[in-house]
Amino acid sequence: MNASPDIRQQLFDNPAMHPRAGLRHSPIHAVLLTNGDVDHVAGLLTLREGQPFTLYGTSGILDSVNANRVFDVMAAGVVAREPIALDRAFEPVPGLRVTLFSVPGKVPLWLEDETLELGAETETTVGAMIEANGRRVAYIPGCARVTDGLKDRIAGVDALLFDGTVLLDDDMIRAGVGTKTGWRMGHVPMTGEGGSVAALADVAIGRRVFVHINNTNPVLVEGSDERLQIEAAGWTVAHDGLTLSLS
Amino acid sequence: MNASPDIRQQLFDNPAMHPRAGLRHSPIHAVLLTNGDVDHVAGLLTLREGQPFTLYGTSGILDSVNANRVFDVMAAGVVAREPIALDRAFEPVPGLRVTLFSVPGKVPLWLEDETLELGAETETTVGAMIEANGRRVAYIPGCARVTDGLKDRIAGVDALLFDGTVLLDDDMIRAGVGTKTGWRMGHVPMTGEGGSVAALADVAIGRRVFVHINNTNPVLVEGSDERLQIEAAGWTVAHDGLTLSLS
Repeated sequence: MNASPDIRQQLFDNPAMHPRAGLRHSPIHAVLLTNGDVDHVAGLLTLREGQPFTLYGTSGILDSVNANRVFDVMAAGVVAREPIALDRAFEPVPGLRVTLFSVPGKVPLWLEDETLELGAETETTVGAMIEANGRRVAYIPGCARVTDGLKDRIAGVDALLFDGTVLLDDDMIRAGVGTKTGWRMGHVPMTGEGGSVAALADVAIGRRVFVHINNTNPVLVEGSDERLQIEAAGWTVAHDGLTLSLS
Repeated sequence: MNASPDIRQQLFDNPAMHPRAGLRHSPIHAVLLTNGDVDHVAGLLTLREGQPFTLYGTSGILDSVNANRVFDVMAAGVVAREPIALDRAFEPVPGLRVTLFSVPGKVPLWLEDETLELGAETETTVGAMIEANGRRVAYIPGCARVTDGLKDRIAGVDALLFDGTVLLDDDMIRAGVGTKTGWRMGHVPMTGEGGSVAALADVAIGRRVFVHINNTNPVLVEGSDERLQIEAAGWTVAHDGLTLSLS
């Protein structure tokens, strides 16, 4: 696995990223949704009209997207929407196996109502186990709590990309930009009570990478005490252009 | 009226653009939709959660947005959605009068079906007459045809910001990136049959500015023959950072 911060140069240099099938070709063949929140689904609106790809997700997630006609800019004849059952592997690209699994979470903000259940393990928030060439990466950008079931599932992965939204449960309140806790938003904190760094410390994981980091999280600042703290615990912070190779 | 290409510096230097009411304050008090296509409404998803503003549009446009729950990230208690009748002035900001009027167009792409009517004058595509301090700007980013009614309405404006999507009706086909004509997309061409440059030539307009320009339109290239052609006809091409002052 290699990491490079120079994503532009990488895209320019990588022939696989060059348009190959027409002026508006993109190399994106498949899109996988792990939940329906706006930061996960709004980008679909920029993949509209001309680019064929397949959109994967649980029925729960796809149904909530499909209920919004604005996503019909991904025309039916161009973008296939394929529901995926939990705990059953599928191959979005030949040689790449993906298995979705439920993690503690909640419905998207835009579907919240008075029946909102926090920490529910349903189809609305999932992780993805990605496998190729005998190597495995677990991708879990949203997770409200580290459970024993989750620890069992990811034990032995070559890499874990995990929910790094907040450092402490009350990051947003400390920063003075909101009133919601991490728990309320469906995100386990890195540290503090129930924090993921401690909860995952005894799990065998090849490489530990935080993703989905909120702009209030001080680990974004290189060299900050908080960054040094999680690095000392064996974690790194993902960056634009991070490349993972399973070859 | 002043134009400046240096939008970043302008934003940095202008105290009115500085956050004033908290870390996530924005100076946007009102948003006006002139149609429901994705390039007009997708940006609403980035104005979510914390910033109070009022969203204005015709009932037809707002109803189509409201039918998509994903836009509920603009929470009801934070963002008011106010339907505006055609041909009746309202004041989104004290001292600024706006009047919406129907222009030839069509429903958003994501609402197209077998009953699609091209060139319809309904609530789904509108222009806005913006007035302050006795000066008037007509903003018409989408318009399928220049009608006599439209010419009468905009006669005498200090500035016209007008649909510059395509140079010729078959721009997209010529560029090899699509099969749709300008007419099919709801956009009158600048030149060629029925072109806006000729159709508006005899209308008294203080300043003629093309906006909503597609990336296939050669007028985007400074110094191109096509750019020189429309400039010779008295038009300019809008740019990022264009500022209009009605004082």
